[in-house]
Amino acid sequence: MNPFENILSAVRQKRPLVHFITNYVTVNDCANMTLALGGSPIMADDLCEVEQIVGHCSALVLNIGTLSERTVQSMLAAGKEANRLGRPVVFDPVGVGASRFRNETAAMLLREVRFDVIKGNISEIAYLAEGIGTTKGVDANLDALSTEGNLRWHTDLARKVSTQTGAAIVISGPIDIVADSHEAWAIRNGHPMMANITGTGCMSAGVIGCCVGADPQALLPSCVCAMSAMGICGELAYEKLLSVDGGSGTYRVLLMDAMSKLDGATLTRRSKAERLRI
Amino acid sequence: MNPFENILSAVRQKRPLVHFITNYVTVNDCANMTLALGGSPIMADDLCEVEQIVGHCSALVLNIGTLSERTVQSMLAAGKEANRLGRPVVFDPVGVGASRFRNETAAMLLREVRFDVIKGNISEIAYLAEGIGTTKGVDANLDALSTEGNLRWHTDLARKVSTQTGAAIVISGPIDIVADSHEAWAIRNGHPMMANITGTGCMSAGVIGCCVGADPQALLPSCVCAMSAMGICGELAYEKLLSVDGGSGTYRVLLMDAMSKLDGATLTRRSKAERLRI
Amino acid sequence: MNPFENILSAVRQKRPLVHFITNYVTVNDCANMTLALGGSPIMADDLCEVEQIVGHCSALVLNIGTLSERTVQSMLAAGKEANRLGRPVVFDPVGVGASRFRNETAAMLLREVRFDVIKGNISEIAYLAEGIGTTKGVDANLDALSTEGNLRWHTDLARKVSTQTGAAIVISGPIDIVADSHEAWAIRNGHPMMANITGTGCMSAGVIGCCVGADPQALLPSCVCAMSAMGICGELAYEKLLSVDGGSGTYRVLLMDAMSKLDGATLTRRSKAERLRI
Repeated sequence: MNPFENILSAVRQKRPLVHFITNYVTVNDCANMTLALGGSPIMADDLCEVEQIVGHCSALVLNIGTLSERTVQSMLAAGKEANRLGRPVVFDPVGVGASRFRNETAAMLLREVRFDVIKGNISEIAYLAEGIGTTKGVDANLDALSTEGNLRWHTDLARKVSTQTGAAIVISGPIDIVADSHEAWAIRNGHPMMANITGTGCMSAGVIGCCVGADPQALLPSCVCAMSAMGICGELAYEKLLSVDGGSGTYRVLLMDAMSKLDGATLTRRSKAERLRI
Repeated sequence: MNPFENILSAVRQKRPLVHFITNYVTVNDCANMTLALGGSPIMADDLCEVEQIVGHCSALVLNIGTLSERTVQSMLAAGKEANRLGRPVVFDPVGVGASRFRNETAAMLLREVRFDVIKGNISEIAYLAEGIGTTKGVDANLDALSTEGNLRWHTDLARKVSTQTGAAIVISGPIDIVADSHEAWAIRNGHPMMANITGTGCMSAGVIGCCVGADPQALLPSCVCAMSAMGICGELAYEKLLSVDGGSGTYRVLLMDAMSKLDGATLTRRSKAERLRI
Repeated sequence: MNPFENILSAVRQKRPLVHFITNYVTVNDCANMTLALGGSPIMADDLCEVEQIVGHCSALVLNIGTLSERTVQSMLAAGKEANRLGRPVVFDPVGVGASRFRNETAAMLLREVRFDVIKGNISEIAYLAEGIGTTKGVDANLDALSTEGNLRWHTDLARKVSTQTGAAIVISGPIDIVADSHEAWAIRNGHPMMANITGTGCMSAGVIGCCVGADPQALLPSCVCAMSAMGICGELAYEKLLSVDGGSGTYRVLLMDAMSKLDGATLTRRSKAERLRI
């Protein structure tokens, strides 16, 4: 069996419980996508309970969209406890670069918590890499999205951030990049329609959380599997969308459908994940 | 007319305004399900206004998913005010057993507020019953879900909690149980697919809120009606899902559709609510 | 090209970034509707960052559903900063009249922030106008919704509030009214089914935010365009709903679909916006 099929099977057999401290915009989508993949979500963000909750979980996902002073403390406490317990932690630095508050929170979390995976668009990852750069809201700077032309540069960036942080780095874009200091992958799945609905990035982080929760030893393959799965679902949803003449509302529904029906054979057959020479 | 048809009619004629203090994961689903049934939702959670808001309402629903220190105080104030005004209060102790914070909040609310209905899965109700037990996240311990084999035990548990609290008790599961100290019902409606989307439990509490808001004198029939309605909608949605070859995203949409189109005749014809000998 | 087509084109070319401080019930719908129209949403509500975030944005939308003491301060700071920068600010006084907290917050914001657009149902706008009146939850007092019979009275009210506040006033209802002190419009688009799902009002405010963000000089035409577009999408969604035999869940999806597929020609052809003699 293909390694991605193994990871998908592991999620569906183990049903990893994934703890999210995340924004209130896409939180429902994250919960439903986690269930669609085969995991089990729990959202809890109060300092009074996050350490206990993470103790029940197989992975922790921290997402700084709609950050507040209250949840910064919860993220810190949950992250430290997950580290102590050896549970994988996924960081989604949504909109870092857009405000000092997000920048300082991201910097503090990077200092205090050991992340296993950091996922962002190119401007977010570039911001973390350079301590510079700007982010227009939570969307990527469209000029700089990862494509064939800048794949080498973005991959090098991902490797640099991985070396700095010890985390596997995921850069989402037309081509998704997954890299650590030793190894890099390009995933050419997905569809531009995914940018027309909110939350595909947040959902991707949840899918990564499920995969690394099911098999924490296989960080890089889990990330490649997760991004392939999301991208393939984006393609399948678009194919179905054409047949029903729908728009962005239907697309969002079909994306969830695709994940809940994704099987290992389809994942293997359609995956356009390629290991890069570095 | 069947008593359940009467309750459904009452909701649609009176359009009860239902006040929710609930989690931000499924809050949109709760609002839309309330509207689909025929009620009118209002979500308000700040201590500055919850007492006034509950004063406009026919029922109050308290749900402790994504609880925070801030909303604990709001739940307490709203619950006490609803008691003072004689408005029915529904309690959904989401994830109780998973953290001291949830446990202590549930215990405090049970001490300070008189609940008319308490709805949970078996592990949540068992926790309340015993002051012991564990909850894996917000999902039920799958081994213990209410089925034919443990129906007697779970019904006795519900009756015990009802005696302790004075509330009608609803245990959701493959078989839903509704009981007070005098009377018990088993509802064999529903579909396993309901567990594949987030929020069916929260939505059920909202449906209960609408039914008891429309007819506060008929607590037990209202709960039986609400759980039957939800279960039947879960079945109808699954039947339609098969015809469109959809997944969990479509299922969620069809569940809402089913409630918005549910009529009294279908409710009566399909209800598998059975009064148990106790 | 019709002026409404120009505004729709402007949104799709400029992709205005719209900052929302809004309730957690319909926030996902607001984000997806903004994307469906062609804008780009950013939700941020912490006092630590709202001023910086609004600095990146073309418009600000303040919505007081699920208001908290924390977000009141954020709304004030963001509103003042938007004023300072000359960015249009849209105010959606959800549920004003239902609690002192909402009333005092609305009054304070009206005192401290210069709004470019205020959008509400008739009871909300009447409350602002009179400092009296009552609001049943977040839904309009059904007896008083704007129809042919009270169109003159409601238009006069809108003009009065516009004179008091300097803002363009939008009253949503079976007939939508858009007015300032010089000019008034009636928009006879929309469908009653829009009231059966939560968030159509909040989404309308987001659509207004996109339109005024794309062309801040054309406030009144932008509001008329936005309300026409929402109403037309409500009609298109209902027409499609009939063909698929769906309910309120499907309707919500189709509403989003319709906006994502709306073209200028359809907007012009179907718009029932009429300038009123005043």
